[in-house]
Amino acid sequence: MRLLKRTGGWNNIESSLDNGKLKELEPIFYPRSIAVVGVSGDEARVPALWFKSLMSSGFKGDIYAVNKKEGQFHGHRIWPSLTSIPGPVDLGIVCVPRASVLDLLQECAAKRVKCVQFYTAGFSESGESQWADAEQKMVRIAREGGFRIIGPNCFGVYNPRHGISYGPFNVMPSLGSVGLIVQSGGIMGKLLEYGLVQGLGFGKGVSIGNASDIGGADFLEYLALDDEIKTIGLYLEGPRDTRRLFEVMRATTRTKPVVVWKGGSSPAGDRAIFSHTGALASSAPVWSGALRQAGAIEVQSLEEMCDTLLLLDRFGRLRRGNVGAICGLTDGGGGEAVLISDVCTAAGVEVPLLREKTAKALVNSIGQVGSVLTNPVDMSQRQSIAPVVKQALELVVGEPQIDVILVYENAGVLLDIYPREVTRAVNEVFLDFGRRRMKPLVLVLPPGPAEARRREIEEEFKQAGAPIFPNVERAAKAIRNLSR
Amino acid sequence: MRLLKRTGGWNNIESSLDNGKLKELEPIFYPRSIAVVGVSGDEARVPALWFKSLMSSGFKGDIYAVNKKEGQFHGHRIWPSLTSIPGPVDLGIVCVPRASVLDLLQECAAKRVKCVQFYTAGFSESGESQWADAEQKMVRIAREGGFRIIGPNCFGVYNPRHGISYGPFNVMPSLGSVGLIVQSGGIMGKLLEYGLVQGLGFGKGVSIGNASDIGGADFLEYLALDDEIKTIGLYLEGPRDTRRLFEVMRATTRTKPVVVWKGGSSPAGDRAIFSHTGALASSAPVWSGALRQAGAIEVQSLEEMCDTLLLLDRFGRLRRGNVGAICGLTDGGGGEAVLISDVCTAAGVEVPLLREKTAKALVNSIGQVGSVLTNPVDMSQRQSIAPVVKQALELVVGEPQIDVILVYENAGVLLDIYPREVTRAVNEVFLDFGRRRMKPLVLVLPPGPAEARRREIEEEFKQAGAPIFPNVERAAKAIRNLSR
Repeated sequence: MRLLKRTGGWNNIESSLDNGKLKELEPIFYPRSIAVVGVSGDEARVPALWFKSLMSSGFKGDIYAVNKKEGQFHGHRIWPSLTSIPGPVDLGIVCVPRASVLDLLQECAAKRVKCVQFYTAGFSESGESQWADAEQKMVRIAREGGFRIIGPNCFGVYNPRHGISYGPFNVMPSLGSVGLIVQSGGIMGKLLEYGLVQGLGFGKGVSIGNASDIGGADFLEYLALDDEIKTIGLYLEGPRDTRRLFEVMRATTRTKPVVVWKGGSSPAGDRAIFSHTGALASSAPVWSGALRQAGAIEVQSLEEMCDTLLLLDRFGRLRRGNVGAICGLTDGGGGEAVLISDVCTAAGVEVPLLREKTAKALVNSIGQVGSVLTNPVDMSQRQSIAPVVKQALELVVGEPQIDVILVYENAGVLLDIYPREVTRAVNEVFLDFGRRRMKPLVLVLPPGPAEARRREIEEEFKQAGAPIFPNVERAAKAIRNLSR
Repeated sequence: MRLLKRTGGWNNIESSLDNGKLKELEPIFYPRSIAVVGVSGDEARVPALWFKSLMSSGFKGDIYAVNKKEGQFHGHRIWPSLTSIPGPVDLGIVCVPRASVLDLLQECAAKRVKCVQFYTAGFSESGESQWADAEQKMVRIAREGGFRIIGPNCFGVYNPRHGISYGPFNVMPSLGSVGLIVQSGGIMGKLLEYGLVQGLGFGKGVSIGNASDIGGADFLEYLALDDEIKTIGLYLEGPRDTRRLFEVMRATTRTKPVVVWKGGSSPAGDRAIFSHTGALASSAPVWSGALRQAGAIEVQSLEEMCDTLLLLDRFGRLRRGNVGAICGLTDGGGGEAVLISDVCTAAGVEVPLLREKTAKALVNSIGQVGSVLTNPVDMSQRQSIAPVVKQALELVVGEPQIDVILVYENAGVLLDIYPREVTRAVNEVFLDFGRRRMKPLVLVLPPGPAEARRREIEEEFKQAGAPIFPNVERAAKAIRNLSR
């Protein structure tokens, strides 16, 4: 079945998603059995760690350890070869030296393994032509043998709901509906770590490394069709399937937001990319143009990717992202108001004027002297009185020209001076508003000397699912990206 | 004595510093006695807090409380008026309603007070013409009475070495050699809080508020001449002494770096500024051009100002700021290398190629497979072996085209998996290098799930005086500003 059939637009390529992709990649995300190749008695080495991760991650299928030297590992027999395993093997995770890889692939074909992911590195990214050739040969053998390859030079797939954690270090992603396709095992790790710290949850993901066989386009098509996935993030260094990737992306963005960080916007970055995944330089402006036409949201760094995914996960895409800001909650708000205005504007986020009647109502409620009562609204003259803060928030929320509420709290001396009941009552105003989800609310809570109190507030907002940022810069960029 | 006498250049204005300014403003930074006007028995109100702050901050001179209602406060007599105080008063700190200010000024003249700083707000920044007029009248009375005004609408001066803390909340700045002139009490607070958290120290500073009498130019001239001050930071909203300010700035930057953040780069920021300090809109590009010609380093936000002051305080200005980066210390370094390269380049910081012999030496030391060995150098294949990390660091430091070392550590699973001895030995390599101060070294240590371990590392580097940033973006901007 063709989900979205339509022609026209970018290069007149047909943009559609092939439902068959779900079936095709099913053995990768839902394998019935996994073999880890390279497991020895050395507990500290990667294949042993990987095997132990799978043992403890709740995977319900069979797990096999494989090593020519045989033996035992934590009560599991180490099989001398893939073919010696009695049951079927859907997914192979291979951590052997690069010199053994071609022999192993013959075994995979004989065993009728569905897919093999290679942690093994040192192919096209090494810069040595014989190993670039070997990488191509791996793909040919796989095609002939009727199985697929993830990588080489990657950490491969995870699917926490199917009991598959990420990589060898037992990282179990927090559960959610973000899907990730990442051309760097380390960047994937950092995205998942951000999720654990910031409360962003993931459905499925894959570190694709050199992506010699299954590419970003294949995985994107799968995640686009997967009902568990609502938002998709891609980190790409140099995909080899660019044309198809943009085609699939264009179809995907009609139903799910896609965030793309393309590494290598600098010559130094391009050099690093070649050594990392063997990909060649590409023009940053060409990429940006193509991403825009494909409807993707382009980001420029790890943090911007994380922050954008967090807001998309919470609020989805917005038609417009004008900010109404409330500051001066735990400090003088004048400088904060200037900071928020300038930084939002520089990021491309509008901080619109309040309507005159609203501004007047704020003056009545907060008082004129010592206050900045345009937008941002400086609460410093009544910062400790929760009902007044609530009134101000409601006035700002009621403005039709405002789409997102930004709250700025400072972890300085005043936060430590106020009794806990006072700051709790004020924060409860924002938490309660967040629960009712009338308009998106984000909290900026910079680090400061009142670190213990700051962490308590952070925890409360996190529990309530509110996005928290350490500075206005990051909040503003992420808000801008919501309505791009 | 004229310190720097020279004409020509920007608008042909004579750029010089008048040594007389030290004497002129001495009673402000080194008062022999201070009177706090407005102190009542209400302990929670600003004047009472201010008086108590001065009592506990180590000020050696006399402190007087003043209030028409008289009485006692913590064993001090509350004097009914300034003129009733028996001894002389150098500095008055005034926290009374705006309606009482003009009467009070007559008293100041009669008492021959040297300077008065007004916490009292509600003048030109209120937008009400009668109060804008009152602000002008205050200045006239002071001129006639032979005394000076700081503010109104400000927190005024601090001088920790003279026992004067900042503002009413008993904030004692950490000691150092940065001087600050800030047109927002809250922003000053945040700068000092950053200092307390990040280990940046301050010599003197002043929150100038509406700056109706003594302006930024006067204070800048003072700090330029003050031997205790090595680096100067300014946050300005709308100074009224722009022409003289740039003249003094041009003379100052010949000997001391000056960092300027001009708020109000956006229409919303300009609106906030008018309500905050009564200053009028100004053109951001004109400001940028004038700052460049005056030799100042312009920054765009609170964080960039803090970060830039921190690096200037540690390393001074640099002729060039090319980065040599070391990553993959606690994670795979491929994606980190791309991230560092792209983000540095986007900020205007070069990440130059290593010389071929250096690259070869790194391959011999770290190994080719799985490593990015250009610049950034990815240590992930030998990340736990301190002598190899040391060798790599020395190779990078030895490159003549590299000026600043950037070290990236990830607080992820690997940091928690490695025994403490292993990560300590590796970090000791960087700490030891930092102590020898051959080239500036900055650490990027993003937050992550291994938070406890991350904080230990942060503390060790902080103790050693190494600048630490939570992301590459902030490190790169600050490094760029060093050599601007």
